[in-house]
Amino acid sequence: MSSTLELTRALIRQDSITPRDEGCQDMMITRLEDLGFTIERMPFGDVSNFWAHRGHGAPVLCFAGHTDVVPTGPLDKWDSHPFEPTIRHGHLFGRGAADMKASLAAFITASERFIAANPEHAGTLAFLITSDEEGVAADGTVRVVDALAARGQQLDYCIVGEPTSSQVFGDTIKNGRRGSLSGHLIVHGIQGHIAYPHLAKNPIHLVAPALAELAAEVWDHGNDYFPPTSWQVSNIHAGTGATNVIPGSCEIKFNFRFSTENTAESLKDRLHAILDKHQLAYELHWALSGNPFITAPGALTDAISQAIVDTCGVTPELNTTGGTSDGRFIKRIARELVEFGPINASIHKLNECVCVDDIEPLACVYEKTLHTLLR
Amino acid sequence: MSSTLELTRALIRQDSITPRDEGCQDMMITRLEDLGFTIERMPFGDVSNFWAHRGHGAPVLCFAGHTDVVPTGPLDKWDSHPFEPTIRHGHLFGRGAADMKASLAAFITASERFIAANPEHAGTLAFLITSDEEGVAADGTVRVVDALAARGQQLDYCIVGEPTSSQVFGDTIKNGRRGSLSGHLIVHGIQGHIAYPHLAKNPIHLVAPALAELAAEVWDHGNDYFPPTSWQVSNIHAGTGATNVIPGSCEIKFNFRFSTENTAESLKDRLHAILDKHQLAYELHWALSGNPFITAPGALTDAISQAIVDTCGVTPELNTTGGTSDGRFIKRIARELVEFGPINASIHKLNECVCVDDIEPLACVYEKTLHTLLR
Ligand SMILES: [Zn+2]
Ligand SMILES: [Zn+2]
Repeated sequence: MSSTLELTRALIRQDSITPRDEGCQDMMITRLEDLGFTIERMPFGDVSNFWAHRGHGAPVLCFAGHTDVVPTGPLDKWDSHPFEPTIRHGHLFGRGAADMKASLAAFITASERFIAANPEHAGTLAFLITSDEEGVAADGTVRVVDALAARGQQLDYCIVGEPTSSQVFGDTIKNGRRGSLSGHLIVHGIQGHIAYPHLAKNPIHLVAPALAELAAEVWDHGNDYFPPTSWQVSNIHAGTGATNVIPGSCEIKFNFRFSTENTAESLKDRLHAILDKHQLAYELHWALSGNPFITAPGALTDAISQAIVDTCGVTPELNTTGGTSDGRFIKRIARELVEFGPINASIHKLNECVCVDDIEPLACVYEKTLHTLLR
Repeated sequence: MSSTLELTRALIRQDSITPRDEGCQDMMITRLEDLGFTIERMPFGDVSNFWAHRGHGAPVLCFAGHTDVVPTGPLDKWDSHPFEPTIRHGHLFGRGAADMKASLAAFITASERFIAANPEHAGTLAFLITSDEEGVAADGTVRVVDALAARGQQLDYCIVGEPTSSQVFGDTIKNGRRGSLSGHLIVHGIQGHIAYPHLAKNPIHLVAPALAELAAEVWDHGNDYFPPTSWQVSNIHAGTGATNVIPGSCEIKFNFRFSTENTAESLKDRLHAILDKHQLAYELHWALSGNPFITAPGALTDAISQAIVDTCGVTPELNTTGGTSDGRFIKRIARELVEFGPINASIHKLNECVCVDDIEPLACVYEKTLHTLLR
């Protein structure tokens, strides 16, 4: 059994449901200490985090990731126990297999092999590991980055181990993420009996043309790095169930995933303008969960892309689709940041798995990237 | 204390929350038997009903009404107990005071006075009384009308005692009611993650333009007897609360209140056409609760209008607005049907009341109408 597979299995055995770490970080730290890393544990609240570094000065290359996993869902719907790593049909099953314990294991074995070959490597190799990426993400990466920023720590290159591959291992590197901006809209009308509509104002009728316009709006066309900005309603609720009452208000929750062609402010302004044009009486509460960020093609994307081509024979695409990740927080102190990891088709689902044959190549990609950038 | 007020108070004391009658009909029957009425009790299921008649042949004039009342709501929010009739500031308070125990009492005293003066009146004076108008309305008027229709009983004139007055006692007679047609619409989309909208179909976005069009549609302009047909959404629901999921379907409940310028079929066809034009995938379940009905101005409206002018000095308006009533069932066997009763501002609310000074005039209007039509 390969050492990366073995460590992946050991990590899966810890039921580190967010925000628990359950000793995963200790396993990593033991291995890093053996390699001569300096370890700083940075617990905040209930959340375990650590920062580790080896070497001196620039360039600083950091592996970033999380040991926590999402809840399992109903245990009886899993074909094998989610915390008992099991290989079937060439796949390793277990909660966190793809998101992101295989990547954590590959970070470690890649570092071990790289340091064995290059004990006096250039610059600094670092680890930034948290255990609340899958939860509220308040006491993890955000706090560690705050602490690092406060002492002027910059990262030249950061590789986040999120599972980014789509159809084939190696096909996708994320070189940024869209912004995410949410709104909670309450449109006010006047409640009344359905038989006397002239005494009421139906907020569903009032908001419908505005909704239609918002759904049809082209917010931007995206750009080289980002797909077009998307606006989606996740929830709409009005009415108490009574079928003879015109409701007094209508509640709508929506979300923008946005490119760098817009800003949170420009989207807010444009959405307000549409609501105002329809003369709606409303309250609107905004929540910005992240601005878009991008790493333009350069040394880091070149190094990891070439490593993938050499290892897998696949030419990766750079893109910025998908959900948010801790990359949005780390980018603040990172000059170049990419995310790369295994196929993400099964993440957050029952029977999460990673292809066994992708695990060593993943470590190999990380190792080759180190060779290119820290030599 | 007037005899109509006294009987109203006695009826309010019975807590006849729908579908219970609690002896109200016995009180009425005792008085009608004394007047020589033939009584037929017609209980169906848990519901007490009776049909009573006096005299022979045409014209048949029938008083129709219900002894049941809507629930009280929180007792501590009433200024006096809802089943303890109480006079304050010239108003008689109690559940059912306006809807419709004052009318029931006025039916009885009007009949007593009319028969005392005209013991050999022309035609037939009848009563059709139920105790489930405020509930499911399945075992009340519908069943009694079925039974009467089965034996060929026709009504020439029917006066339903619903509270129809709006601002001033006597200002409104209902000479018909709009139809009521409800729909339960489920628009199908494809559920997905909000970060991957191209893999989902948002049913809220899909239905919004159709909703906007339906809300703006002019269904008809009404006519001499009916206001324009109105379409209103009472409920819209989509989304599970999760803010990162595009829901798979959107559920909408709506209702038409419609004039005789449309039919249930024409409205269904037009609504389907709009949904289909927007290429929606949907299920739609219809429920027709009543077709529109109308009594054109004639002997009955003339008689009761003149009685109101003579009694109150107010010229009543004929209209067809407001909710449904049992009139829609009785019209099937009634040539002419109107609804007339006290001010309806407080019905179905806390502190329901009727103006004490309107109670004897109400009996007087009914009595004068009998004089005109059964002499
Ligand atoms: Zn992850
Ligand atoms: Zn009523």
